[in-house]
Amino acid sequence: MKEVQSLIDYRSDVRVVDATLRDGGLVNDFYFTDDFVRSLYLANIKAGVDYMEFGYKASKEMFDENKFGKWKFCRDEDIRAIVGDNNTDLKIAVMADVGRCDYQNDIIEKAESPIDLIRVATYLNTIPSAADMIENAAKKGYEVSCNIMAISNSQESDLAAALDIIGKTPVDVLYIVDSYGALYPEQVARVADIFLNFAAKYGKKVGIHAHNNQQLAFANTIEAVGDGVDWLDGTYGAMGRGAGNCAMELLLGFLRNPKYNVYPVHRKAYQQAARGGCCLGI
Amino acid sequence: MKEVQSLIDYRSDVRVVDATLRDGGLVNDFYFTDDFVRSLYLANIKAGVDYMEFGYKASKEMFDENKFGKWKFCRDEDIRAIVGDNNTDLKIAVMADVGRCDYQNDIIEKAESPIDLIRVATYLNTIPSAADMIENAAKKGYEVSCNIMAISNSQESDLAAALDIIGKTPVDVLYIVDSYGALYPEQVARVADIFLNFAAKYGKKVGIHAHNNQQLAFANTIEAVGDGVDWLDGTYGAMGRGAGNCAMELLLGFLRNPKYNVYPVHRKAYQQAARGGCCLGI
Repeated sequence: MKEVQSLIDYRSDVRVVDATLRDGGLVNDFYFTDDFVRSLYLANIKAGVDYMEFGYKASKEMFDENKFGKWKFCRDEDIRAIVGDNNTDLKIAVMADVGRCDYQNDIIEKAESPIDLIRVATYLNTIPSAADMIENAAKKGYEVSCNIMAISNSQESDLAAALDIIGKTPVDVLYIVDSYGALYPEQVARVADIFLNFAAKYGKKVGIHAHNNQQLAFANTIEAVGDGVDWLDGTYGAMGRGAGNCAMELLLGFLRNPKYNVYPVHRKAYQQAARGGCCLGI
Repeated sequence: MKEVQSLIDYRSDVRVVDATLRDGGLVNDFYFTDDFVRSLYLANIKAGVDYMEFGYKASKEMFDENKFGKWKFCRDEDIRAIVGDNNTDLKIAVMADVGRCDYQNDIIEKAESPIDLIRVATYLNTIPSAADMIENAAKKGYEVSCNIMAISNSQESDLAAALDIIGKTPVDVLYIVDSYGALYPEQVARVADIFLNFAAKYGKKVGIHAHNNQQLAFANTIEAVGDGVDWLDGTYGAMGRGAGNCAMELLLGFLRNPKYNVYPVHRKAYQQAARGGCCLGI
């Protein structure tokens, strides 16, 4: 039985990442209106969310820009059109998929970009490429995470080997990604244990991105935070690929740090619904 | 971190209770067709479910029989019309609410009834009445559970006092009922710990009935079973009051005892959907 303390106090190292546009974009091919994106940005600021992921930095050579909304490509100028100079506490993230991103050219120097965090998404079989992307992004001045997908299909020894490679890069956060929503909480605890061991060895943080195929995305996220995982992904209305993700509304309601506040999110959604506009999916 | 063993092996003391008609009946005022109830009965048998709760034994003095379907009252003859002599491994349960049940008259001797298990539902402030109902049902020959509702609103010391009273009755199972779906898994662990201590003291079993208001009904149920709780409630399609219950489909997929089988449930639902009939809500 865990400490009673843990549900009353909070850990200041926790970070909340809104992945609505990125994982939700996989549902609607990234066709979000600017009005929606702006509302989401403002809601995240009011809710105390730490990072907002705007979408993918997908290669325009590999994907037809006419077949997807702009957030599949996340041009810096499109982000700036929403956030201006982003003089807020909310940081901006994008995802760069191994093998689907022209990162040498499309990711510019941090000093010139509104983006703060590059999330490098990889499977276990492309870890060396991920390491290269991480080095590149870190050199340009970004915070970097490495999001290891399809973790429920991984052998623990392969995972350990991967973490030992990625741990040696300048990555900041090692992310558990339960792509199929296949893990039960006690399996999350075991996977987190492996991640946390390598994070301790190399001085990194650990994050979790959960899917809801077994109605466990929120449960697995709060299991992970109890185990020592600090970076937590959510999406509004749980919007995301397949069965969706951890619902941000549940996550914000759970966290005890007074900086997080779920009420503005609900109010914004109700206001928008009341005037017939888009809502945040609640 | 829990033992790896626990997700591979199983505990033969686990019992699965289908509460679809009873908690689901709170959604549709118990207006299920006989065809649906018969299909549910057959699906439960094929799925290896241990108990099927048919509804409430509500007082016909207090509730108008014209305003509810028959499963609010669960006359023995209505149950017999579905199950005959019930020569199966599936046992039959009904719920009797403290203060809403004419249990002296409406619950007959077990030897004359198709019902196996009386589930006495109570709040903490009606524990002495619950104890009286338990004594009555046990004397008539039934298995009996005591389902303590609204547990998230209870003080731990009141709960302990209640369990010390109920523990002295001939009750078989002490049930945690998270009526508002308000508990997080680590709170379930703490509540289960209190229940399990009294269960050990008095030689009882412990069960859990979860609600899904925070998408934690399934997570809380598997947390409880990991903590040593044996009796697990589910409903098909999670149908139940408010946000619903623990989805039986998820629960059957989780349990490792080969007697449980989720496939017939899905097949039955697909067959019925295909011919335009009612389905089990999947």
